[in-house]
Amino acid sequence: MLDVNSSTDALKQDAAGLIDKLRVSSPRVHCLTNSVAQVLTANVLLALGAEPSMTIAPQEMGAFVESADATLINLGTLDSDRRASAKIAAETATGLGKPFVLDPVFAHRSATRKTLAEEILKLGPTAIRGNGEELRELSVRRDLTIEVETGSDDLVRAPGKKISVHNGHPYMAQTTAMGCALGAVMAASLAVEEQPVVAIVGALLIFGTTGELAAKETRGPGSFVPAFIDTLASLRRTDIETHGRMS
Amino acid sequence: MLDVNSSTDALKQDAAGLIDKLRVSSPRVHCLTNSVAQVLTANVLLALGAEPSMTIAPQEMGAFVESADATLINLGTLDSDRRASAKIAAETATGLGKPFVLDPVFAHRSATRKTLAEEILKLGPTAIRGNGEELRELSVRRDLTIEVETGSDDLVRAPGKKISVHNGHPYMAQTTAMGCALGAVMAASLAVEEQPVVAIVGALLIFGTTGELAAKETRGPGSFVPAFIDTLASLRRTDIETHGRMS
Amino acid sequence: MLDVNSSTDALKQDAAGLIDKLRVSSPRVHCLTNSVAQVLTANVLLALGAEPSMTIAPQEMGAFVESADATLINLGTLDSDRRASAKIAAETATGLGKPFVLDPVFAHRSATRKTLAEEILKLGPTAIRGNGEELRELSVRRDLTIEVETGSDDLVRAPGKKISVHNGHPYMAQTTAMGCALGAVMAASLAVEEQPVVAIVGALLIFGTTGELAAKETRGPGSFVPAFIDTLASLRRTDIETHGRMS
Repeated sequence: MLDVNSSTDALKQDAAGLIDKLRVSSPRVHCLTNSVAQVLTANVLLALGAEPSMTIAPQEMGAFVESADATLINLGTLDSDRRASAKIAAETATGLGKPFVLDPVFAHRSATRKTLAEEILKLGPTAIRGNGEELRELSVRRDLTIEVETGSDDLVRAPGKKISVHNGHPYMAQTTAMGCALGAVMAASLAVEEQPVVAIVGALLIFGTTGELAAKETRGPGSFVPAFIDTLASLRRTDIETHGRMS
Repeated sequence: MLDVNSSTDALKQDAAGLIDKLRVSSPRVHCLTNSVAQVLTANVLLALGAEPSMTIAPQEMGAFVESADATLINLGTLDSDRRASAKIAAETATGLGKPFVLDPVFAHRSATRKTLAEEILKLGPTAIRGNGEELRELSVRRDLTIEVETGSDDLVRAPGKKISVHNGHPYMAQTTAMGCALGAVMAASLAVEEQPVVAIVGALLIFGTTGELAAKETRGPGSFVPAFIDTLASLRRTDIETHGRMS
Repeated sequence: MLDVNSSTDALKQDAAGLIDKLRVSSPRVHCLTNSVAQVLTANVLLALGAEPSMTIAPQEMGAFVESADATLINLGTLDSDRRASAKIAAETATGLGKPFVLDPVFAHRSATRKTLAEEILKLGPTAIRGNGEELRELSVRRDLTIEVETGSDDLVRAPGKKISVHNGHPYMAQTTAMGCALGAVMAASLAVEEQPVVAIVGALLIFGTTGELAAKETRGPGSFVPAFIDTLASLRRTDIETHGRMS
């Protein structure tokens, strides 16, 4: 499914190296995210060695995005502060040429979210992550923005490229905010890896491999969460090379 | 303690069947709930196969309540968005004839919460859940609303009925937001079971049985939380039939 | 490092007794804290036998601080409600002579936070907790406020006193909101122990000892969180006497 210029194996090797770059660089990631996702997202970033910040206040949004290396804009629990801040964050990141990721949570359930998501898409997020229902609601310009559709397989669509990542575990869908936390890992990855497609595929491999390995040691979606963090904190490049599956 | 028309055993059988109805129907439950309860509540609903949504934004409240099968209105951490949304949610649910549950958290600690709780009670929530201190503060019209007082025993009061559920474990009181999550399970149950008393008693049996079984495998209130979710995700009708205790 | 009037051993004995005072007194602690810290903070307080409340609403702040025994003001995720409430909480606590703790999260990343922290410092919090970067940004009047700098060692600075507590574990820095939860334990301790330095040192010993003991049974920062709560809920005075290290 790849273009003629790169092989799956070469891309996987590059993507597997991302885990070391993250731990060495400790990128600052600002997460404008929903209230359900904040704790898991912060702990996921800390387990990767990144430094999360989580404020949603419009008064502070510019300062935090400016002093971060990448930003996540997640439209869940979209109250008035988050609504105002989403635009500020997108404009600040675009203005500074810093990477940012859009997650249009429940865009199919709320007209105002859909409208806001479309406005932010025009500012050119580096990547957008959603499920099929959410993405079908929106017009993504793939020349500007890498589209990531997550599900039992994860699909990455970029100009001339279409990549599938086959890792993961059903517990991930039974755990609230897992997809939201993945958006933050994508932002962290874009902060440390210059090739955006490598960063995005690497984030998916890291996340899915961790989920698979963590699920082996747990008895249900409750014990899966601490196991996921434990596994992520000790994940090594070789784990991705051994267990990562993509095409 | 039951009325002459139904036996405890028959009610328990009906209530035990609720767990299968929940997993088959996957009801959408909108939770306008406090910020401390959001993560646990979402994971509890996911473990039952329900689909949670959690926004608190007044601009979105009507759309989310309308596209949900039942709604929880929990008055904890009552900021200005939640305050405005509570009324919209109650009015939308009442107008559409959809079930909703009120949880008047800390109504005895804040005069403005008490006032709001009284206003919502006039709109006729299907059920109200609180502890003794909270419920004594309020005037519940039992011809409109099933009253559920939770504690070491849970008491259900409806016209002509008074039922006690005797399951649960002390760790549940040591874990923040357990009672709040129960309110969401009551809402999910009302979405899939036509007889409200059966739905409420079933929710209490599901929750209390899960707590008892989960506590057996844990060493304190911290490990109790993931064990509670694991147990809930694998809970079967026979567990409730075997371990449920009511009178 | 202590003044001539008290020995380390005597202070440690007094501080170790704090755990029993907390469990007997069940102090009410109001936590105006960031949205990432709310769940962990509430569960930490419950594990100590304290009764947490967590609203951030300005309309309710006076009532909750007034009916609490101590208050935490944490400046993380500083939205407009939290900003307004922080001043109300500080003024209410000061006016009533009740203890309160300030945690100036990310004061070095946001000019408006720094300004607000300075305003609250003028009202004389009983204690301030921060890391080195945050505290260097602020002017703490040590005749009014005990300064606690947390890190691999925790430093307590009060007039004529300089105390180090040497407990803790690296997992604590890999877990979001651990420091924020410590601020709430400091507030709870000030509610039940008349000597503020004993309360603060005791809170640090409780927290650090719990972290050390919990880490022994865990494989990473994810399983560390439930183990921390389990350990805290069963912590005894003798654990602190045996494992507490200070100078």
